[in-house]
Amino acid sequence: MDISVHFYQPPAPTGKVQIMTISQLSVPGFRAAAVEAAIKKPGRLDLGLIVADTPATAAGVFTTNKVKAAPVILCQRRLRRGQAQAILVNSGNANACTGDAGLAAADACSAHVAAQLGIAAGLVLPASTGVIGQPLPVDRLRAAIPALVDRLRPEGLSDVAAAIMTTDTFPKMAAVTQEIDGRPITVAGIAKGAGMIHPNLATMLVFLLTDAAITAPALKAALQQGLAASFNRITVDGDTSTNDCVLVLASAAAGLPPITDMTSPAGQAFAGLLKTVMADLATQIVRDGEGAAHLFKVLITGAATPQEALRAARTVALSPLVKTAVAGNDANWGRIMAALGRAGIRLDPRKVDISFGPHQVVQGGLGLGPAAEQAAQALMATGNFDLHINLNLGNGTDYYLTCDLTAEYVHINADYRS
Amino acid sequence: MDISVHFYQPPAPTGKVQIMTISQLSVPGFRAAAVEAAIKKPGRLDLGLIVADTPATAAGVFTTNKVKAAPVILCQRRLRRGQAQAILVNSGNANACTGDAGLAAADACSAHVAAQLGIAAGLVLPASTGVIGQPLPVDRLRAAIPALVDRLRPEGLSDVAAAIMTTDTFPKMAAVTQEIDGRPITVAGIAKGAGMIHPNLATMLVFLLTDAAITAPALKAALQQGLAASFNRITVDGDTSTNDCVLVLASAAAGLPPITDMTSPAGQAFAGLLKTVMADLATQIVRDGEGAAHLFKVLITGAATPQEALRAARTVALSPLVKTAVAGNDANWGRIMAALGRAGIRLDPRKVDISFGPHQVVQGGLGLGPAAEQAAQALMATGNFDLHINLNLGNGTDYYLTCDLTAEYVHINADYRS
Repeated sequence: MDISVHFYQPPAPTGKVQIMTISQLSVPGFRAAAVEAAIKKPGRLDLGLIVADTPATAAGVFTTNKVKAAPVILCQRRLRRGQAQAILVNSGNANACTGDAGLAAADACSAHVAAQLGIAAGLVLPASTGVIGQPLPVDRLRAAIPALVDRLRPEGLSDVAAAIMTTDTFPKMAAVTQEIDGRPITVAGIAKGAGMIHPNLATMLVFLLTDAAITAPALKAALQQGLAASFNRITVDGDTSTNDCVLVLASAAAGLPPITDMTSPAGQAFAGLLKTVMADLATQIVRDGEGAAHLFKVLITGAATPQEALRAARTVALSPLVKTAVAGNDANWGRIMAALGRAGIRLDPRKVDISFGPHQVVQGGLGLGPAAEQAAQALMATGNFDLHINLNLGNGTDYYLTCDLTAEYVHINADYRS
Repeated sequence: MDISVHFYQPPAPTGKVQIMTISQLSVPGFRAAAVEAAIKKPGRLDLGLIVADTPATAAGVFTTNKVKAAPVILCQRRLRRGQAQAILVNSGNANACTGDAGLAAADACSAHVAAQLGIAAGLVLPASTGVIGQPLPVDRLRAAIPALVDRLRPEGLSDVAAAIMTTDTFPKMAAVTQEIDGRPITVAGIAKGAGMIHPNLATMLVFLLTDAAITAPALKAALQQGLAASFNRITVDGDTSTNDCVLVLASAAAGLPPITDMTSPAGQAFAGLLKTVMADLATQIVRDGEGAAHLFKVLITGAATPQEALRAARTVALSPLVKTAVAGNDANWGRIMAALGRAGIRLDPRKVDISFGPHQVVQGGLGLGPAAEQAAQALMATGNFDLHINLNLGNGTDYYLTCDLTAEYVHINADYRS
């Protein structure tokens, strides 16, 4: 498979930040591999493994959906100690809505890979994406695990990125390296975005690796901090999945003293790197949203509170009428006004200003006419723009990154089996 | 124009309830008419008028959107007295996001029609649907009003139903007659559903007429009661409009003593008639949702509370992944489970049962296999079914009526101007 790294918005190579290319995508202290386990159709990688040389500090965040897949339940249990040494991930089967049998299946596969690696089963974090409600084919996974372990190598991460793709049109990877306290620290990540395998969901899986040394509470804090600027600010269709998870493992292989305090210079620097990688992966996921032809940021300023800014941004970013208008390159500000009006926020329609990039189309709640809209539409046609809405009520600011709603999205999600 | 009455689910003609045919669609005490006012393209009715012979008891409910069109603001003011004598409605221009000029425009048109009718301007209720953010062409409306008044006739209601259509594919009308206290009482209604005129919304307009005599508070109460079983239980795309309104006028022409108490036998009988017409119009609106190929009812039972039942029904009914699955006749219960899981309700996934009509596909949170799904899919292909979800937690029950999300919806809403 032809793999290329997609830094959708590569972090600017300023200061000591250095961007990796695909051939370098490795993180000291980790090896990875992927194989075909015949869960998906022949010819597709569908089972991946990431292993730390020694037990790594680990943290995770998981779907808020009350219907949680078996691997999510196991990961949540196993991360209580803040340590892990391996991630075993399959595509093609979500192992969700499978009851106790699903938990046993995930546990059996973890135990099998742990035995092969000579580590405790409780240090293996399982993850799955794909079909809901069908039994995990444990025999196929077990049969493939020896070859998987054999192939482990430092540069294997891109194979895992490929193995977790479903309807993703490109593998999602990002990595940065920056000196912290005089030593290069790497943070790399891979992600699987909103893709469909019958009958599944807008499933998101994200695995982050670093060679920094860090305590479990500090790692969890950095992860939570990064979320607010990445995976908690994106939407494709508003549905959340049974399998969503973001895992981070820190190997300490860089040989620095552990970060214990996120407010220290080293802690802040590390949190910044993690956030950069997370934000980049989040952008890649939206860019590759099912059927998406436009990526746009809904930026709210002037809201009465930051909370209301977020609520307004989310409502506009999720509105099917706004998203279909964007699909048609239509600067349809009436739909934006209407979405704001039902967002449950304080709003004075006569104060609202709306711009597409630099092109203002609404001032004080009134349209600025066809010429302004035409300029906006030319920008929209580039496929990437900021939709800036100033409510002119206060200082609340927030944003959401989203994509358009196209006929292709419907085709992907309606006709998958036909 | 070829008009036919659409009772999508005609109320059963049991007891003394009698269903009207189009040639009879009139309500004693009212006249109506529609004309071409050149707001829309030539050849399309776009201005309608409904007039009561004498001031009628009136009530209304309006969009909860904070961005309210000028006619909505005027109607809310004018209905404070609980009386009205005319409804003047145009399509092709929503008169929304038009500021003070929009209010003045709506007021001027009301005043003009009031003068022609010889009634007070405050007794005219204006309504608009169509393009947002463009000035109402007052001159064209004024020029058309004399002909509109000339054409008023008891059977003109179907013309108004045609005049308020935008992308509706059929005019929406419903009417029932039933004896109350020995005299026939009629309730009739017309509606305009989710249709697009650039750059507009899923606008809904509903006008209800009756020859019952009723006090304004009782009429308002009956209207509110009917809403819960009709327009508050339907969704096409979750967007609400700047122009949504439901107006009801009661002429008292049937000659009965006024209904003052909704709990009296006459009050209950009247509320039942109003609800029947409202529910029928609501169903017609969803059936004619933009691009809709399937109409389905999401019925929740066994929720912890009635409020959670409604929340669950609404979340499933709005889920793009569920709606696209329905478009593809795919009994994709994993998406239903996932929608329930993010509905913000109490949920035990291991207790959930899901059926499509009589065909159960999930029991205790686990799938019942391909044969069960195939039976469900055969039912889905008929285009009309109940999706029954039993949460098995309590006695909470509610429902939502919705339609599928098709590529046609996207085309209608993305490509309107191209």
